[in-house]
Amino acid sequence: MKEFMGNDFLLASGLAERLFEEVKDLPIIDYHCHLEPKEIAEDKRFKNITEMWLGGDHYKWRLMRANGVPEEYITGARPDYEKFEKWAETVEDLIGSPLYHWTHLELRRYFGCDTLLNKKTAREVWERCNAVINTDDFSVGGILKKFNVECVVTTDDPADDLAYHKQIAESGMSAKVLPAFRPSNAFALNDPGFPDYIKKLSDASGIAVTDYESLRDALYQRIDFFHSMGCRISDNALDPPVFKRYEESEINYIVIKALSGQTPKSGDIKRFKTALFVDLGRRYNKLGWVMQIHMNAARNNNTLMLKTLGINSGYDSIMDEPVTGHVNALLDSLAVTGELPKTILYSLNPAADDIIASLAGNFQGGVRGKIQYGAAWWFNDTKTGMIKQMTALANSGLLARFVGMLTDSRSFLSYTRHEYFRRIMANLLAEWVENGEFPNDFDKLAEIAKGIAYGNAKEYFGM
Amino acid sequence: MKEFMGNDFLLASGLAERLFEEVKDLPIIDYHCHLEPKEIAEDKRFKNITEMWLGGDHYKWRLMRANGVPEEYITGARPDYEKFEKWAETVEDLIGSPLYHWTHLELRRYFGCDTLLNKKTAREVWERCNAVINTDDFSVGGILKKFNVECVVTTDDPADDLAYHKQIAESGMSAKVLPAFRPSNAFALNDPGFPDYIKKLSDASGIAVTDYESLRDALYQRIDFFHSMGCRISDNALDPPVFKRYEESEINYIVIKALSGQTPKSGDIKRFKTALFVDLGRRYNKLGWVMQIHMNAARNNNTLMLKTLGINSGYDSIMDEPVTGHVNALLDSLAVTGELPKTILYSLNPAADDIIASLAGNFQGGVRGKIQYGAAWWFNDTKTGMIKQMTALANSGLLARFVGMLTDSRSFLSYTRHEYFRRIMANLLAEWVENGEFPNDFDKLAEIAKGIAYGNAKEYFGM
Amino acid sequence: MKEFMGNDFLLASGLAERLFEEVKDLPIIDYHCHLEPKEIAEDKRFKNITEMWLGGDHYKWRLMRANGVPEEYITGARPDYEKFEKWAETVEDLIGSPLYHWTHLELRRYFGCDTLLNKKTAREVWERCNAVINTDDFSVGGILKKFNVECVVTTDDPADDLAYHKQIAESGMSAKVLPAFRPSNAFALNDPGFPDYIKKLSDASGIAVTDYESLRDALYQRIDFFHSMGCRISDNALDPPVFKRYEESEINYIVIKALSGQTPKSGDIKRFKTALFVDLGRRYNKLGWVMQIHMNAARNNNTLMLKTLGINSGYDSIMDEPVTGHVNALLDSLAVTGELPKTILYSLNPAADDIIASLAGNFQGGVRGKIQYGAAWWFNDTKTGMIKQMTALANSGLLARFVGMLTDSRSFLSYTRHEYFRRIMANLLAEWVENGEFPNDFDKLAEIAKGIAYGNAKEYFGM
Repeated sequence: MKEFMGNDFLLASGLAERLFEEVKDLPIIDYHCHLEPKEIAEDKRFKNITEMWLGGDHYKWRLMRANGVPEEYITGARPDYEKFEKWAETVEDLIGSPLYHWTHLELRRYFGCDTLLNKKTAREVWERCNAVINTDDFSVGGILKKFNVECVVTTDDPADDLAYHKQIAESGMSAKVLPAFRPSNAFALNDPGFPDYIKKLSDASGIAVTDYESLRDALYQRIDFFHSMGCRISDNALDPPVFKRYEESEINYIVIKALSGQTPKSGDIKRFKTALFVDLGRRYNKLGWVMQIHMNAARNNNTLMLKTLGINSGYDSIMDEPVTGHVNALLDSLAVTGELPKTILYSLNPAADDIIASLAGNFQGGVRGKIQYGAAWWFNDTKTGMIKQMTALANSGLLARFVGMLTDSRSFLSYTRHEYFRRIMANLLAEWVENGEFPNDFDKLAEIAKGIAYGNAKEYFGM
Repeated sequence: MKEFMGNDFLLASGLAERLFEEVKDLPIIDYHCHLEPKEIAEDKRFKNITEMWLGGDHYKWRLMRANGVPEEYITGARPDYEKFEKWAETVEDLIGSPLYHWTHLELRRYFGCDTLLNKKTAREVWERCNAVINTDDFSVGGILKKFNVECVVTTDDPADDLAYHKQIAESGMSAKVLPAFRPSNAFALNDPGFPDYIKKLSDASGIAVTDYESLRDALYQRIDFFHSMGCRISDNALDPPVFKRYEESEINYIVIKALSGQTPKSGDIKRFKTALFVDLGRRYNKLGWVMQIHMNAARNNNTLMLKTLGINSGYDSIMDEPVTGHVNALLDSLAVTGELPKTILYSLNPAADDIIASLAGNFQGGVRGKIQYGAAWWFNDTKTGMIKQMTALANSGLLARFVGMLTDSRSFLSYTRHEYFRRIMANLLAEWVENGEFPNDFDKLAEIAKGIAYGNAKEYFGM
Repeated sequence: MKEFMGNDFLLASGLAERLFEEVKDLPIIDYHCHLEPKEIAEDKRFKNITEMWLGGDHYKWRLMRANGVPEEYITGARPDYEKFEKWAETVEDLIGSPLYHWTHLELRRYFGCDTLLNKKTAREVWERCNAVINTDDFSVGGILKKFNVECVVTTDDPADDLAYHKQIAESGMSAKVLPAFRPSNAFALNDPGFPDYIKKLSDASGIAVTDYESLRDALYQRIDFFHSMGCRISDNALDPPVFKRYEESEINYIVIKALSGQTPKSGDIKRFKTALFVDLGRRYNKLGWVMQIHMNAARNNNTLMLKTLGINSGYDSIMDEPVTGHVNALLDSLAVTGELPKTILYSLNPAADDIIASLAGNFQGGVRGKIQYGAAWWFNDTKTGMIKQMTALANSGLLARFVGMLTDSRSFLSYTRHEYFRRIMANLLAEWVENGEFPNDFDKLAEIAKGIAYGNAKEYFGM
């Protein structure tokens, strides 16, 4: 029996341990996350572990709710210690959950606290963590340095002025902090807030948006501005992916109608989204950017809680609609003119692992690992989810070109997930060798492991 | 190499064996099955093992058909021994099948017969089993006692008078036998038998059903009656789940038209089903009931055999349509007013394991384990299916709050499936500990294992 | 640690090794492939390993593209050695890929070359392979003999005159080479080439096709002709499966309109396809043929490359639309009159493994293993894919009746995939025994293994 979370945690062989040694101290390129640039710029410090750990973490909230913890202890007004205690009571029962591992990795690697968190130890852990939380290691900058984070890519709206990114760049912080371009609001034609957003975008770009062409021009202006600020990545949440053939001429009129306050028709929304996807993709490609596509999320499923707490509060789940027809058509629309940028496809639906991995193969060519089947995302960010994603990729693609792990996190305490991923990845490679399915050539194995842990992302994103 | 079905069957470590010891003798709460109340009330005895074992078991029938056994030996007129022999010939080739395990567990635990069933041993096994089948251990009451069945929940139509349940309650049988409320017939607006069923329901409830409101009232009357008989569980087969927004006012008219013999339109059927689902859900919630939802079954796919043998004869399979949009909307319709009852979601499609486990998280809150991702069902009631279901639940939910196993069976010989489940569950928990993924805290592990085997269901159903 | 691709490759126990010994030298019945009858008839020889190995292998092409290899080295005009070298550079990084195994099995078993292929060894391997490629072992006939291929079933158009099959039959080649009837072109009502194809079919059959009835008669004539040439198998690519109720009378008119050059409507295409599927199925059944159905492929997703390279160039992927409603209805349409032939269902979508395995159970009866859930296909033709397919089949069907492996290949170097499958299958059976999940009865295990490797196909196809 192995010790819980010992040195050989998740490593089943000596070879796995040796491979993990090769990658464990490599820098982290966190190429997709949801950290707040403001908090990085201000080198934020946290008042206690509840603020730092439970403040915005909907993974933890969901499990507390499943455990019957009243909402007042989760997002409500109860004192911070009581919230922490409720989490401690929940943690002790989390057998089989990634949150059990994340929790204890974070306590150990950030706080040097090896105590198992549970109802009995809650007070002790609370005190030990809070005793150090004011030291320099726990400011945002301190954390990025401690975890050897080479690069952080935040997720930003096109209308953002990126002032915090400028401030960070000038601050001498050890990590590069770059923006990613996420034009979700510009796609939300049928959102009541669309006209207001368009005004913001007009202001930011200096281009008065009145129709589709001026919208596209305004976004192109923002892409150029983001590029000048070091941005090399876009992010697109296709909820769900839609493709519909359109005539260039009709799109202008669709936007004009929407801006005049008319409710757009379903077919028009699809035409508009298709057109904008293609036009933005062309620009990303021209600038050598990477286009990220997130698929298969069903968001905000609990109306009551959406009204109470807003979005990103733990009421999202996996969507199960078919997507390949639409995704193939969207990518083909760019590929047909040779304008498909490097692309990462993330699927929240693990039943689509092999499907999306095979789809990526339809558009490869010219660049090493051009179309990536992205890392196991969100509900799949688990030991079994990672193994499944990497196995699917290895079965129909080229695992050795995989750009690897990202945190996708809203918390500064998530960098240990790179350790978690690196252990699982090293073990998977070693397992194939142990089983006689790949030669025991350590140099080659280390080269592949280091590529997946760090080098591939470094080369692919070119930041 | 392990001995076939030895003491350590399905248990890969000493810890797994110790955990199984903790749970193996716990009582059984069989909270969902399809046993006949009449047979329980009459304390039925069986004339031979063919009647008892092969009489209604479509799992076995399907495998005999796949083996080319003529139908006359399956559901036809051949003598009982010949049918038994055909099953024996099929069994010996069932490598990798849960039926190989079920068969031999049943022979061992019910009949004390360790002989491997095959063509050569068929006569011997037939004689050994039939020699004891008339003893008290093999009456229905004897079986429930022998297997320490604390509670059996049958599946009953709202129009049922529950006379057998009354008779059982008064009989002093060791097990509690309670009804579950399954209103499938009341949802079948487009079924030719709908008007006749409505007459039965009117008679049973004493409320003349003439429109939607009176239908709802009649069902409420039946729910109250079922409640008075100890019922705490409803069961709903959503084949498939449908949600469609409706106006209260239009539903009355939809029912009036259907009762007058008009064929309802597709949209109207959906509106009606949505309305009735919501109204019944509210009542379940008011009474503290648990609402079970069974999804993703494609039933009666073989028209010729449906005409010959009727339903539940082995011609059903897994449905692959997307469901999350509808299921999220149905549950949200109840949650938005705070009227969502405790709910168990069963998916027949194992590709939806992670999907439904994540969906459950959208509606948690207030009660420990309120929304359950239900046990691996029917075609998934296998070793791999159970492991997959529990792993999905552990990955995105709280496995430790899982209410565990049910038989869902039409046979009194299925109680050994609880042993089968308990072995697999104990081994899964132990495996995580052996791998260093959870601490080796035996008290905690035993507490979790006992909860899943028995305690959680006891607390959750409150029967 | 096991040696790479040693004698115990993919075999985890002594029992697995013993079982593999039982099956490794059995003849190969390759009941579905895409080999060219012309190349067999001419007993083709290859000029070098690039022509033989990389000439038409879109699996390898996809991985070279994913590795950033320019198209000129893949399907373009670069010299053969340079193409080979680019493949060698790609191979060395294929950890976890079936192509790593296929490549080295082929080098070892065909060429006796144990060298690991990589950038450094490319020249050596190139020379060793080319040195023997002109020997008799490497003519098509030599290969079929060396690998003990008892029967090869090609895939042929109804209008084909099967002249090469006649020539092969008369040549005294060791293997039987039979045609399979693949009427895809006759289903392609909406293809611009449909009228031209119908002319070819009229010529081949001697029946002037002017409407649906004459089309059916022409195809029946071809079926009878194929039957006279030893054909016992049809192949149908349902991309996607469609079922739509139709009146016999309307189908004639649909075909007349299409032949007159009118674009058929979507509903009419579905009606036509349903009618033709049912009518052909009846004829297959009458003649005792096996009907193969291939599902869930999304083909030709890259328009630019389709125009450049044509079909089957590596731009296909897995389709994720639901299929059970249509497939159940299609099979039921034949079963309802007792005219469903033996059928093999292949699903490219591995998320549908359990779904299709359960669906097969809806139509079993009368013949051992009548409805087969077919071998892991194309993107699933991997170690994990095979285990998943066989496990799904074992869970809800009768694995012991499985007709086993086929190559589905366009290459004469694929016969080692039967070894690959036999190792994985033997190991899976042994694993269950090692775990105490099936008795250690070697005779029974060997009987089952030999059935899956060879005997079942022999019995099932009756060729």
